[in-house]
Amino acid sequence: MSKEYRVAVAGATGAVGRAMRSILAERGFPVKELVALATAKSAGTRLDYCGEEVIVQELTPDSFKGIDLALFSAGGGTSLKYAPHAREAGCVVVDNSSAWRMEPDIPLVVPEVNPGDVDWHTGIIANPNCSTIQMVVALKPLHDEAQIERVVVSTYQAVSGTGAKAIKELLEQTPRVMAGEPVEPAVYPHQIAFNCLPHIDVFLEDGYTKEERKMVDETKKIMGDPSIAVTATCVRVPVQIGHSESVNIQFAKPLSVERARELLSRAPGLKVLDDPENKVYPMPIDAAGKDDTYVGRIRIDPTAENALHLWVVSDNLRKGAALNAVQIAELLAERDLVRVPR
Amino acid sequence: MSKEYRVAVAGATGAVGRAMRSILAERGFPVKELVALATAKSAGTRLDYCGEEVIVQELTPDSFKGIDLALFSAGGGTSLKYAPHAREAGCVVVDNSSAWRMEPDIPLVVPEVNPGDVDWHTGIIANPNCSTIQMVVALKPLHDEAQIERVVVSTYQAVSGTGAKAIKELLEQTPRVMAGEPVEPAVYPHQIAFNCLPHIDVFLEDGYTKEERKMVDETKKIMGDPSIAVTATCVRVPVQIGHSESVNIQFAKPLSVERARELLSRAPGLKVLDDPENKVYPMPIDAAGKDDTYVGRIRIDPTAENALHLWVVSDNLRKGAALNAVQIAELLAERDLVRVPR
Repeated sequence: MSKEYRVAVAGATGAVGRAMRSILAERGFPVKELVALATAKSAGTRLDYCGEEVIVQELTPDSFKGIDLALFSAGGGTSLKYAPHAREAGCVVVDNSSAWRMEPDIPLVVPEVNPGDVDWHTGIIANPNCSTIQMVVALKPLHDEAQIERVVVSTYQAVSGTGAKAIKELLEQTPRVMAGEPVEPAVYPHQIAFNCLPHIDVFLEDGYTKEERKMVDETKKIMGDPSIAVTATCVRVPVQIGHSESVNIQFAKPLSVERARELLSRAPGLKVLDDPENKVYPMPIDAAGKDDTYVGRIRIDPTAENALHLWVVSDNLRKGAALNAVQIAELLAERDLVRVPR
Repeated sequence: MSKEYRVAVAGATGAVGRAMRSILAERGFPVKELVALATAKSAGTRLDYCGEEVIVQELTPDSFKGIDLALFSAGGGTSLKYAPHAREAGCVVVDNSSAWRMEPDIPLVVPEVNPGDVDWHTGIIANPNCSTIQMVVALKPLHDEAQIERVVVSTYQAVSGTGAKAIKELLEQTPRVMAGEPVEPAVYPHQIAFNCLPHIDVFLEDGYTKEERKMVDETKKIMGDPSIAVTATCVRVPVQIGHSESVNIQFAKPLSVERARELLSRAPGLKVLDDPENKVYPMPIDAAGKDDTYVGRIRIDPTAENALHLWVVSDNLRKGAALNAVQIAELLAERDLVRVPR
């Protein structure tokens, strides 16, 4: 990694954009120049990158001239509009939105799971949905051993997954609810403080939400195995950072708790926290700010053949978004793939 | 119901005891006299019942002389110790603790599900666990139609299930966490504000918690069908009142969403709230203070044969505890069973 790159962050002022900047710095990604891009409204904002001031520029079709790599976290519409301009200018895009994820010619990558898929990129690599990333990191070592047939997952998702404005909404609502004052939800359709919303992203015709559908479809694509059946219920809970998942897995082959624990313990990006007797299990407050995905509550489900339960927790802004995007960038740099194939 | 009864509430000062008193009054249960019982520490406390002052008496083995019916919500140890004294004195006990639930000669009753089981009581009737009650109310009409084979449930449980002191802990921790101050968990082993704890009740040898085991065992007993396989993951969330449940059900026979909705709509104690297009689905903030169990997010799970998802929410202090106990009392009164068989 002796090369250095001109790196743009599109959506630099958002919750994930902020995490992208700090993770690039923390991990020493070889950045020659950092360009912060955002909407016209945020242009001129002064940000910090490695102790140097970076002034936010307006994102335009011309923003990518001379840029090698762009990390996008600015919403699906922005990605659809600007990622092609970036690619056209010879800039490789790692996109955190859902816009490109299911396109057959766009790799969808979790570096611990399917690093090889970066090899066939054509200028855009998609970063999966936060709740999918942490789940597949935990599923992969078990799938390699015992072949997953079916997954039933229920999520407990933090508000930061919606963005900085949702954290603000939770923190503003909380004291109002405690004081018995009325709240006026704006980011979410209903009060989120002291509540659970079984509704993330929009509803589809079959009664699933788009978030639930993402967990189903993206898991198959990342794992490279369309035979893995996934069904999901995605729920927003009043937690700031850290998604939790209750995951029930049915395998084709038997898998003991001991063997599952061994496989999970040595898998990349995972840490097993599973000592219930001493009240040790993964929790969002412990995962927040960390890079690993935490797994615990590992136990046999006796109601189906070859079935296990897991409880999986990770920082949705880091592994669920910014960290995974930077890891993809690292993979591209290692493989000398920070260029748009012609 | 022309008879009137001398009714004791044991654990009268707790969160459930308070709800028991108000529900007895609201529903016009034929109370001749209300006796409030609690530990010596609470004796002398003045409570209100139907606008009249009731002074809390210390719970002793002699508390039940002349009492017809006692509603217990004072923990398992207290029930084990005092319920036999009550029965001995000719007082019928409806017990909200887990102490007697799995005893073969003690009925475990949800009036909408197995009302007939009160008929064989021998002086003690057990009130099921909160998370089980709301689930079986929703499962029963579907089981009668299509025979449930397997249930995978993940819960989102409110702190009031632990008692009044846990509500206090959540409300005290919340502003401290927002201010960045340290918290000292006392009721729970870890911070509950802005967190999720995959730990309710104690851990058992197989890695399940006792709360999870209750959902497994109690469901079979209440539904009167040991063939129903249930597996559960029980999680405490920072919600004051109202348990939510993500329930995945596999049936022996096909069951359409339309038919499930029809069955659930006309079942007693249930209300279907399932209009996702208009952002209508059950939520704890709406269920709190209500008697019904709410069901929504009804949808086919295509990953298994004859499978459906439900999202079930109810007030854990009311239907999950106090209301169900009062409904059992009503059933006993209707059937003239407020007496200990000799």
